[in-house]
Amino acid sequence: MNYFSSNFKLGILGGGQLGKMMLYDTRKFDIYTCVLDPSADAPSRLACDEFTVGDLLDYDTVINFGKNVDVLTFEIENVNVDALESLEKRGVKVFPSAKTLRIIQNKATQKLFYRDNEIPTADFSRFAYTSEIDEAVDNGGLSYPFVWKSARFGYDGTGVKVVRGLSDLTDLPNVECITETLIPFKNELAVIVARNEQGDIKTYPVVEMEFHPEANQVEYVICPARIPDDIAKKAELVALKTAEAYKHVGLLAVEMFQTENDDILVNEVAPRPHNSGHYSIEASYTSQFEQQLRCILGLPLGNTESKVAGVMVNLVGAENHTGNVVYKNIEDILAMDGVTPHIYGKKQTRPFRKMGHVTIVNEDIAVARDIAEKVKRTIEVISE
Amino acid sequence: MNYFSSNFKLGILGGGQLGKMMLYDTRKFDIYTCVLDPSADAPSRLACDEFTVGDLLDYDTVINFGKNVDVLTFEIENVNVDALESLEKRGVKVFPSAKTLRIIQNKATQKLFYRDNEIPTADFSRFAYTSEIDEAVDNGGLSYPFVWKSARFGYDGTGVKVVRGLSDLTDLPNVECITETLIPFKNELAVIVARNEQGDIKTYPVVEMEFHPEANQVEYVICPARIPDDIAKKAELVALKTAEAYKHVGLLAVEMFQTENDDILVNEVAPRPHNSGHYSIEASYTSQFEQQLRCILGLPLGNTESKVAGVMVNLVGAENHTGNVVYKNIEDILAMDGVTPHIYGKKQTRPFRKMGHVTIVNEDIAVARDIAEKVKRTIEVISE
Repeated sequence: MNYFSSNFKLGILGGGQLGKMMLYDTRKFDIYTCVLDPSADAPSRLACDEFTVGDLLDYDTVINFGKNVDVLTFEIENVNVDALESLEKRGVKVFPSAKTLRIIQNKATQKLFYRDNEIPTADFSRFAYTSEIDEAVDNGGLSYPFVWKSARFGYDGTGVKVVRGLSDLTDLPNVECITETLIPFKNELAVIVARNEQGDIKTYPVVEMEFHPEANQVEYVICPARIPDDIAKKAELVALKTAEAYKHVGLLAVEMFQTENDDILVNEVAPRPHNSGHYSIEASYTSQFEQQLRCILGLPLGNTESKVAGVMVNLVGAENHTGNVVYKNIEDILAMDGVTPHIYGKKQTRPFRKMGHVTIVNEDIAVARDIAEKVKRTIEVISE
Repeated sequence: MNYFSSNFKLGILGGGQLGKMMLYDTRKFDIYTCVLDPSADAPSRLACDEFTVGDLLDYDTVINFGKNVDVLTFEIENVNVDALESLEKRGVKVFPSAKTLRIIQNKATQKLFYRDNEIPTADFSRFAYTSEIDEAVDNGGLSYPFVWKSARFGYDGTGVKVVRGLSDLTDLPNVECITETLIPFKNELAVIVARNEQGDIKTYPVVEMEFHPEANQVEYVICPARIPDDIAKKAELVALKTAEAYKHVGLLAVEMFQTENDDILVNEVAPRPHNSGHYSIEASYTSQFEQQLRCILGLPLGNTESKVAGVMVNLVGAENHTGNVVYKNIEDILAMDGVTPHIYGKKQTRPFRKMGHVTIVNEDIAVARDIAEKVKRTIEVISE
């Protein structure tokens, strides 16, 4: 099939920022795109050919949308997987596959998958309900501290909590969940793997993530990670093994811990373009968004190397500011060398809300890192 | 004024490829955009906030469109300048200015402007009608060969002809025109100058252009130009002087000849993003489209240096092919290192029609140039 013909239609479930950034690259390739999103104001409403408002979790809505496209993908995991399976049976190419998404949607299933495939990950226990945890503690099957994660719909830190004692347990939702050994780690790393239907596979460089202590959101992503080559190589191999295990088609962002004794453990994965790959728009030969298209359209994979070093800063709403957003001092950061803001266009800010990101590129990663700190100190996402 | 507020509106006259590529960057900055174009199918209809169909040459249409925006720009020179002047009087910021556009729209006025401002350019004569030329030849005021240019609406080679004898004159349109001394040159060079309202000014590296012999369209643009530093410096200074003379606000693409004795002569200018700057999307720290926004919005200018070397190949329709376009072997060029196609989405091809461009980036310009030739030999823009 000629992906550059006007008969071809690419469907995207979700019309948020990730979808929007991917749509820029569909334009470059002149690919006809259809987007489904629950919100009429979704960022992707601009830049797609057909925009449909509808519930991504409703079986019939997803079927009716998906049956009219040739290739179907998603920019968010929280979609109706049964519908994706039916569409696959009807011959629609769904990438990443429904099978992969079903595993990833549930953190317990995801962890079992790693265990079954001998992919290194933190030890864990499964619970049908949070209320069953303290019994396990009483029986000595589990001991504080540990990490609690709701099995479903965890995103950007919500649904994750470090539990140091009974009191931390009481205010948690009583849902299907897992507990994980609390891993003391040196670094949080991520590797984005790109794989197409033909099985061609490439990895982006290992990136290093710095988290905001309170918001539990990534604050800086640094590419390449400032770690020894042997650790980077180890992380790359774990990421490759993970993508191969899923027989993944598309991008797979693999988040990992580098433990204090330099083991690499998979934390979790995202089957889509990822915040840890935003730097690639400015720094890489092939941006993660173009690469995702190449993967799901069965095109040759692009070069994943970097032209220059990159650091990404997430723009999150300042504390104590809720209301119409103002990007204070944005002109000042635009005057800094190699700085590109990406404003997501959300009109309302609130504390720690993800409002955009800024990429800083430079031939020297140390310089990029310094400018990134200056950016962070300078721009303020506040309310009017 | 806060350019990042939703109250701000940027108006763009023309919804073609240049406008479309600029719109990607308005999204990045979340700038509200309004586009006016005569065609309901204009590429920019996607990716702008408000799309209006209307005649760019009709005074009232341009006034009614322009009076509702804060800053007005254009992606094509062929617009109603009287309307731009009236809008300036009403307080709309028109960048580049109506005054500049009026000079550039008429090649005779443009040449006089260079003469008045001591900007080096080929000697020329003005004629109210082509029919007056042979008289000038008879009087010995002009001698073959020379270059004939219609004063108005010359674009991509149309309206330009090398005249070697009377027979060449006869089939030319009888319009206001100029004749220029035919300059034997080593290279055609271009420099894109960026200048904002505050007077901050930067130049992109000098690029080298190779033209297609028959179509008289740029076939390769090579950045940086493979010329001695002193020549590059000279070209850069001429371009700066030209932009300063216009007190230009926005991008000014200055096309120049490097003569056989290494003089630099200005051929013509374009007051907008330009084909000779497309390489900047992949190769530069700041693409020409983001830079144009920075210029006309009074933002600090971005870094004009390159991350890597770049070569651009124009994709034009193959000879003897007219009809529904097919990009034969596009998958093959996607497998080449550092190759990014930009397909403009025109459904119909015809000989030499500009259908897109391909950028090739590499740390080594010689490698990029080799791959560019391979791209040129591989992809074919043909009809079904």
